[in-house]
Amino acid sequence: MGKVGIIMGSTSDLPVMEEAKKILDEIGIPNEMEIVSAHRTPEKMFEYAKNAKKNGVSVIIAGAGGAAHLPGMTASLTSLPVIGVPVKSSNSIDGWDSILSILQMPGGIPVATVALNGAKNAGLLAARIIGSSNESVYKVLSDYQESLKNKVLNSKI
Amino acid sequence: MGKVGIIMGSTSDLPVMEEAKKILDEIGIPNEMEIVSAHRTPEKMFEYAKNAKKNGVSVIIAGAGGAAHLPGMTASLTSLPVIGVPVKSSNSIDGWDSILSILQMPGGIPVATVALNGAKNAGLLAARIIGSSNESVYKVLSDYQESLKNKVLNSKI
Amino acid sequence: MGKVGIIMGSTSDLPVMEEAKKILDEIGIPNEMEIVSAHRTPEKMFEYAKNAKKNGVSVIIAGAGGAAHLPGMTASLTSLPVIGVPVKSSNSIDGWDSILSILQMPGGIPVATVALNGAKNAGLLAARIIGSSNESVYKVLSDYQESLKNKVLNSKI
Amino acid sequence: MGKVGIIMGSTSDLPVMEEAKKILDEIGIPNEMEIVSAHRTPEKMFEYAKNAKKNGVSVIIAGAGGAAHLPGMTASLTSLPVIGVPVKSSNSIDGWDSILSILQMPGGIPVATVALNGAKNAGLLAARIIGSSNESVYKVLSDYQESLKNKVLNSKI
Amino acid sequence: MGKVGIIMGSTSDLPVMEEAKKILDEIGIPNEMEIVSAHRTPEKMFEYAKNAKKNGVSVIIAGAGGAAHLPGMTASLTSLPVIGVPVKSSNSIDGWDSILSILQMPGGIPVATVALNGAKNAGLLAARIIGSSNESVYKVLSDYQESLKNKVLNSKI
Amino acid sequence: MGKVGIIMGSTSDLPVMEEAKKILDEIGIPNEMEIVSAHRTPEKMFEYAKNAKKNGVSVIIAGAGGAAHLPGMTASLTSLPVIGVPVKSSNSIDGWDSILSILQMPGGIPVATVALNGAKNAGLLAARIIGSSNESVYKVLSDYQESLKNKVLNSKI
Amino acid sequence: MGKVGIIMGSTSDLPVMEEAKKILDEIGIPNEMEIVSAHRTPEKMFEYAKNAKKNGVSVIIAGAGGAAHLPGMTASLTSLPVIGVPVKSSNSIDGWDSILSILQMPGGIPVATVALNGAKNAGLLAARIIGSSNESVYKVLSDYQESLKNKVLNSKI
Amino acid sequence: MGKVGIIMGSTSDLPVMEEAKKILDEIGIPNEMEIVSAHRTPEKMFEYAKNAKKNGVSVIIAGAGGAAHLPGMTASLTSLPVIGVPVKSSNSIDGWDSILSILQMPGGIPVATVALNGAKNAGLLAARIIGSSNESVYKVLSDYQESLKNKVLNSKI
Repeated sequence: MGKVGIIMGSTSDLPVMEEAKKILDEIGIPNEMEIVSAHRTPEKMFEYAKNAKKNGVSVIIAGAGGAAHLPGMTASLTSLPVIGVPVKSSNSIDGWDSILSILQMPGGIPVATVALNGAKNAGLLAARIIGSSNESVYKVLSDYQESLKNKVLNSKI
Repeated sequence: MGKVGIIMGSTSDLPVMEEAKKILDEIGIPNEMEIVSAHRTPEKMFEYAKNAKKNGVSVIIAGAGGAAHLPGMTASLTSLPVIGVPVKSSNSIDGWDSILSILQMPGGIPVATVALNGAKNAGLLAARIIGSSNESVYKVLSDYQESLKNKVLNSKI
Repeated sequence: MGKVGIIMGSTSDLPVMEEAKKILDEIGIPNEMEIVSAHRTPEKMFEYAKNAKKNGVSVIIAGAGGAAHLPGMTASLTSLPVIGVPVKSSNSIDGWDSILSILQMPGGIPVATVALNGAKNAGLLAARIIGSSNESVYKVLSDYQESLKNKVLNSKI
Repeated sequence: MGKVGIIMGSTSDLPVMEEAKKILDEIGIPNEMEIVSAHRTPEKMFEYAKNAKKNGVSVIIAGAGGAAHLPGMTASLTSLPVIGVPVKSSNSIDGWDSILSILQMPGGIPVATVALNGAKNAGLLAARIIGSSNESVYKVLSDYQESLKNKVLNSKI
Repeated sequence: MGKVGIIMGSTSDLPVMEEAKKILDEIGIPNEMEIVSAHRTPEKMFEYAKNAKKNGVSVIIAGAGGAAHLPGMTASLTSLPVIGVPVKSSNSIDGWDSILSILQMPGGIPVATVALNGAKNAGLLAARIIGSSNESVYKVLSDYQESLKNKVLNSKI
Repeated sequence: MGKVGIIMGSTSDLPVMEEAKKILDEIGIPNEMEIVSAHRTPEKMFEYAKNAKKNGVSVIIAGAGGAAHLPGMTASLTSLPVIGVPVKSSNSIDGWDSILSILQMPGGIPVATVALNGAKNAGLLAARIIGSSNESVYKVLSDYQESLKNKVLNSKI
Repeated sequence: MGKVGIIMGSTSDLPVMEEAKKILDEIGIPNEMEIVSAHRTPEKMFEYAKNAKKNGVSVIIAGAGGAAHLPGMTASLTSLPVIGVPVKSSNSIDGWDSILSILQMPGGIPVATVALNGAKNAGLLAARIIGSSNESVYKVLSDYQESLKNKVLNSKI
Repeated sequence: MGKVGIIMGSTSDLPVMEEAKKILDEIGIPNEMEIVSAHRTPEKMFEYAKNAKKNGVSVIIAGAGGAAHLPGMTASLTSLPVIGVPVKSSNSIDGWDSILSILQMPGGIPVATVALNGAKNAGLLAARIIGSSNESVYKVLSDYQESLKNKVLNSKI
């Protein structure tokens, strides 16, 4: 089973993005986390994306805010599935900028976009991707969904 | 290699959604296409999603317009990766309704959202998901990206 | 007179949704309140909606935030009137996601949408629905509107 | 069984609003249709709303575009349930003006808002309201939903 | 010189709306301030607007939030100039609802809309309206604009 | 009675703006119409606004599209009432740019904004302003509103 | 005087982008035009931006639609001024995606954004940049602005 | 090397706008900062813009909030490059008003718009403009970009 590469544009995205790592750790999927900025370290982004597959990464999660180019650019430099997390950064316009600059990719280069600040779901989506060809991960995910159900069923008003 | 299940709420979504089938056929990934409406055939949706894995589906692409509940509800009924395609239907408010009702899923149930009417990218994303554990599909996708590049490099102004 | 069923996706919706219960209690209309999540307990949602009528419910109020599928899915599983309350949840995009995913239902399956966080009006709308065939409830509602008027007329600047 | 009163601000709203009449006729619910403008005939609006109940109306459907005040003002002048239909009129800003001026009613005066141009659903919602205390109407509505399902199940791709 | 009538839907609008009174007092234009709710006291609104001219009012300023019907309805009941102030109330969607339901009046019934929470400018606009036929008021307004200029010219960074 | 000055940024605004002239002619209020561009003829704009009062203008109507600075700049250069008409020009973003750059004036400099492309209402508002100190104009406006009412009352469905 | 490099993501952007070339030709500023796609030819984009200065380019104009990453990525790979033109492409959401993904750059990497489809202004801005250190270009631009003025002054209604 | 003129509509814009001065000082580019209000001191704005070039200014940075006319009007009164900074002022509608009234300039008069509150990038853009014809400034900017890169490369998670 490959590992999940979690990258983000800035340490300020960390409080949001570490939710992805947390859920992956919980599910038991190997992962790595790194700061890779599309605008300040474009060469590092190129190398990270170009070499991801050979470095054992099988899914990439990329989070960024504002004019968020990291997920789309990463997707243009690899053929691995790339999940984009729009981060509501401090000067963002209510998150619309991050969402639209990640979501609206042109035909040919797909990015799997999750909800604003939805890093937890990005982790779960990465797990589902791995689980689609790995029965034991699929089983863990099914149990996880069952546990969500039970938490609701047991909740009291 | 599992097949890709392409579902949509209405035959009116077909002109958009068949782009997903087209690219999957081109890449050589088995797929099926069906009308499954969250609001008019909720029971069929339940059965489709619940039985998808056992029916050999490994990725689901779900397209819908307006208050688009099909992708999210499907994701809540399976642990397979679900890709959502917001369709700009006739009475949609410029597509915002479709986008937001697919994208903004609560923590726990992820949907991989692509661009408005982005069915082609949904097909490519499904292929990347399969390719993440299948070398020959990965190779086809790399070649595809190379071909996009060459088309641009050869374009004349 | 049937009772009003108030359902919501999560206990975090309770501070908003209990305004519906409060006004129904004040008017004297029987009601019940329950957590039913479209995405985490889809089976419970199915059962709740399918059996509502036979359980003596005559109007359903459903509140949810973000990609809010509970009101529309409930409406697709019953022929009772369903009132949707868009809840401005923590990661919502200013409430637009909740509003549009409740409001923009396709032709065939109606949801009666009220204002963002408008649970009080949802309760009043349920009461008006019951009052449309129940003279004493209608009378209470007329008196309530009269009391609103008097409060304004007596307000001092 | 009372009748449904369908009112609208202008004859230009008729192509949208007659969908409400059509579905009510199909279901077999008595209805009347009239032009009542909040801004050009405020006195007529007052009289219509004030006398609706005594004239045998049990649900009001009000459609309007732009700064759409008809549904909310009508709701303030009666205790009957009022359904608002945002109409996308010629100079509307993509329908946002109609939607927000109907939906965002203050606490105390509820309007049941349906989708942009959603007059058909307004008719169905009126029918569900009547059906909530009328078994034969409820039966017709259940059959209608069953027919929607069958149409989807029989659709061919 | 007639007086300016300042009305608003609720005492909660007072902190915003009293800016209109303050600037009118400063300029020396007689004014009155009253709570008149379109939705809770529609009859009072009718009477206020219908009798405004005969009561010596020459300009009306109307402020309201959310689905803000007071300015437009007032304009439909008088031929005096009506100035609308969109108020950003607590459950407003960033003020868009108030703005659009005041601004987008249909042809025939004009409302002079000012900025969100722009009650001070509403007062100044009322003064300009009066000043357009009253030289001494015009003079006060010219001096006021001159004073704004001097304040900027004397500001230090 | 002073005249109404109608200015606009470009001849392309004429099809929208001539509705203002038409209604003023109909009411019998003298008016003049001129092309004055804030961005291409800033000096002419200065002179027009500075001299408007002495040239017998008592109300200014200014229409512009996109980044629409003409109404606000004109208002900063005169103490006459200025009515702004947001024009939905060809490259406008659905009119939002015109609306917001006219409406959201800072405290101190008011602009009376009407609906998108609402030049007819701008003319009527100018007439109401003049009518607020001129009985015969007020009478014409009251008759006009009466005629709107009768047109609706006589409309057939 | 350096030349202006005009790049765009796709030949479909050409009808918009050639307005930049046209005005630069008219002013007499050397320029080149090329297809450079951030997503399909990321390596070419890297080379173009990295070598622009040494190739005699002094200003870059970059146009793109949807999730428009070309202007921002180019700006991250050079220290030359980069002008971004948001293009309203076919599946764009009214242009909002292009605008926000170009405009909202993080601190450190500036892009000079012009209006939606504003390629002509991009050309003029490039000319102003060159003219800020070149008197003869500045003179041509002043004459150009004078000619705009005269065209307005001579326009007839 | 000319100096950069930084102007803003009000002292309340200073906390945002001084970021421009700070980065210019750091790079070593002479600059001046002044309060110039389009709406309260239109004559000063005219003089500032008209005389900027002869006063040794080679780039102008103009910041304003709400209906932000300062950047566009300044650009219409000079042929120097003008950079606009949309400021999110207190009564702004999430910044949309400032952005659109600066960005959406008509063809002929360009403004280089940066991100909401993006004064730091405005300073850097002014430096890039000067650097496009000044090797030593270009060198400082390249070093600056290199330093951004190193900061990211050295950041620890």
